[in-house]
Amino acid sequence: MDNPGTTQRIADWIATVPRPRIARAAPLAIEGMRDAIGVILAGAAEPVPRKVFAAVSRWGSGPARIIGHDGALAAPWAALVNGASAHVLDYDDTFAPLSGHATAVLVPAILALGEERNASGPDLLDALVVGLEVMACIGRGVNPRHYALGWHATSTIGAIGAAAACARLMNLDATQARDALSLGVSMAAGTRMQLGAEAKSIHAGFAAKDGILAATLAEAGAGGAAEALEGRWRFVDLYAGRPAPEGAMLPPGENEPLAIESIGIAYKAYPTCAATHLSLDALLSLREGAGITPDRIAAIETDLPLVLSRNLMHPRPTTGMEARFSMEYCLAAAATQGALTLSDFEGDAIHRDAIRALMPRITMRGVPEPEDAPPPPTTVTLRLTDGTTLTEMRTERRGSRGNPMREADHDAKFRDCAGHVLDAAGVARALAAIHGLATGGDAASLVDTLVP
Amino acid sequence: MDNPGTTQRIADWIATVPRPRIARAAPLAIEGMRDAIGVILAGAAEPVPRKVFAAVSRWGSGPARIIGHDGALAAPWAALVNGASAHVLDYDDTFAPLSGHATAVLVPAILALGEERNASGPDLLDALVVGLEVMACIGRGVNPRHYALGWHATSTIGAIGAAAACARLMNLDATQARDALSLGVSMAAGTRMQLGAEAKSIHAGFAAKDGILAATLAEAGAGGAAEALEGRWRFVDLYAGRPAPEGAMLPPGENEPLAIESIGIAYKAYPTCAATHLSLDALLSLREGAGITPDRIAAIETDLPLVLSRNLMHPRPTTGMEARFSMEYCLAAAATQGALTLSDFEGDAIHRDAIRALMPRITMRGVPEPEDAPPPPTTVTLRLTDGTTLTEMRTERRGSRGNPMREADHDAKFRDCAGHVLDAAGVARALAAIHGLATGGDAASLVDTLVP
Repeated sequence: MDNPGTTQRIADWIATVPRPRIARAAPLAIEGMRDAIGVILAGAAEPVPRKVFAAVSRWGSGPARIIGHDGALAAPWAALVNGASAHVLDYDDTFAPLSGHATAVLVPAILALGEERNASGPDLLDALVVGLEVMACIGRGVNPRHYALGWHATSTIGAIGAAAACARLMNLDATQARDALSLGVSMAAGTRMQLGAEAKSIHAGFAAKDGILAATLAEAGAGGAAEALEGRWRFVDLYAGRPAPEGAMLPPGENEPLAIESIGIAYKAYPTCAATHLSLDALLSLREGAGITPDRIAAIETDLPLVLSRNLMHPRPTTGMEARFSMEYCLAAAATQGALTLSDFEGDAIHRDAIRALMPRITMRGVPEPEDAPPPPTTVTLRLTDGTTLTEMRTERRGSRGNPMREADHDAKFRDCAGHVLDAAGVARALAAIHGLATGGDAASLVDTLVP
Repeated sequence: MDNPGTTQRIADWIATVPRPRIARAAPLAIEGMRDAIGVILAGAAEPVPRKVFAAVSRWGSGPARIIGHDGALAAPWAALVNGASAHVLDYDDTFAPLSGHATAVLVPAILALGEERNASGPDLLDALVVGLEVMACIGRGVNPRHYALGWHATSTIGAIGAAAACARLMNLDATQARDALSLGVSMAAGTRMQLGAEAKSIHAGFAAKDGILAATLAEAGAGGAAEALEGRWRFVDLYAGRPAPEGAMLPPGENEPLAIESIGIAYKAYPTCAATHLSLDALLSLREGAGITPDRIAAIETDLPLVLSRNLMHPRPTTGMEARFSMEYCLAAAATQGALTLSDFEGDAIHRDAIRALMPRITMRGVPEPEDAPPPPTTVTLRLTDGTTLTEMRTERRGSRGNPMREADHDAKFRDCAGHVLDAAGVARALAAIHGLATGGDAASLVDTLVP
């Protein structure tokens, strides 16, 4: 074809981009792998992935292990369970062009398929970077409208991105990679209605599983519509309702930076819905700067983009999961304690009196945003009992490329997360395996360090 | 809840509708089962399900057998392969409220799950009727707009309907059934872009697999948003873009007929896209009535609803699969031969000179239809070389409830289909097992008759 379409150009890129070019981003991929694995280890102890594991265990065992558990399944089912672990705590990273969670989908897919296919450490990192890039291509074509319409991009674009990563890990040719993308589009589902429900966590697992399934079917020669992304009834049309901006979906040229380099993965400093983070950053900064104790707080008001505020649909949460989607709970807990950690969503923590007492004094307002302009900044106004008013405005959350977490913060997060499953020596072994991926190791020896 | 939402009301119905009420429709369910099993047997010999079987076989064996093949897999994978077999020939029934293919999804799901769970014959029929009813509820809520937007309803609504059928077969309670529906919504994907591609056949398998997965996860206690069908970001909103008509989605009351009784399954008299059928009925009627030989045909023109004509996107097909979505090929073959059977889409049959010569003289026109009115009738105009013009108009295709196929036609279709895999004695055994389902038998002994 002289003028291949978008889907084919992305597939060509998946099949042919030189491995040394991708390997230049390996240090960034290792950061993503580390954060994802930590979050999966912490999530593995939660009820949702345990239920998923119980359900799919009836369908036999296999070579792909369940992180943080004793058991191994066929690759798609292991990816489903590990994906649910990755997303259940809402502590997993986000990726701006995706409008969703990237490594929560990609890492479970890559590790499970990697165990099945004996992938090396460099293979895993290579597939992760390729999957992220394809998520960026597709995300640029459909967002922000796709997410604003109500699609859970983690799940929808996630399935296609995971198909791309798996296609790369399997060394599919350009035609097979195109079929994998097309079959991924045929499995792209999941809406934001599930935010706060257990199914939301499973969405990341569905996407990881579907990526493996799409690439495996394509490898076996199953075909799909060649132009799966562009044109009538295709992904962009049906899932965004308008054409993609000209050129938005093209993969990077030889001398252009990769999305993981130019945009970067945004890590989470708090185990809550990303929509709460700018407000939390601003509140904690005000609280710390002015040395404010909870008894001095008369009211907290926050204004944030409407599209984000709509995720926070649980003003009076009844479960830890709902509390992650509650601006009121998150701000009240952070204002009371000066911090927000995994333990604030465990057991009965969400019912603590001091925090519940503050919640009625918290107001969240969604600010409508023009469709194709940058989102408005998030502000927090803190009204004190003595009449003082303090305000802070934020646009880049802590953990993002423009406002990075310190290495010590990443390390502390990994240890806090991994400590739910591993002892101190186990944490050290896991970190060593992750940091060694660029130069050696393989999926099996990495996962050896992630099971009890 | 005093005033439960649509999803809960459907779930309550799944969990509580009395089995004797459903059993009154058993003879109709047996017809559906017979047609579906015939088509699966014929489809099993095709390349697409073979590729799917090869792909998923790497994930281990299980108790659910592959119809027409030697092999058994875990239930979800068997449902995926058998679903691809069911839909690959486009000879499977349609169901009007669904705007899609019902038993191609439900029967593979029910048989695979039935083998895993040792379901009896009456269990299978019961689950089939319940699944159809839920497909009707959801279809009334979103169609015709859902299909017109480009969604492949077989795949989207199919996943939710299969979840309902599996929930019934597993005896889930009303809360679990609601979760199964919600998780089904989270897997509802597949667009009409795949018509004519191999992935289109696999869509029915995806939906069957997803129904088993949704119900199994719900059984294990995994939850989903309670109002998965109604409201913002829910199925009706995102997949139809407008609210459901008032009351459209409610399941039937105690004294109301079931959808399988009042609307009925529409069986296919030709192994082609349903959009070709009214034109084929009209053409064959004109041809037979006037005793017309092919050499007397100067031109054939057909007008049909635009929404249907858009499926027929292959005026000059290059594969048997594309030929099923080619009005030009289907009318030319029928005009030449006076019939259209499976053999017309096998091997090199689509390249026969006499048929190819007639194709340029065939014109298809799509007639736009008002959104909520009944579709316009389909007409065929036959222009003869002597200047004669004959016209015929059709609204109900042969095989539908209003224009049923004769029992002898059904029997001939089953024998033609099943003969691709079974010998004459085998066909008789399979028919006996199917006809005995209302009074006994079980999934395993039925499937015993469907494997070589």
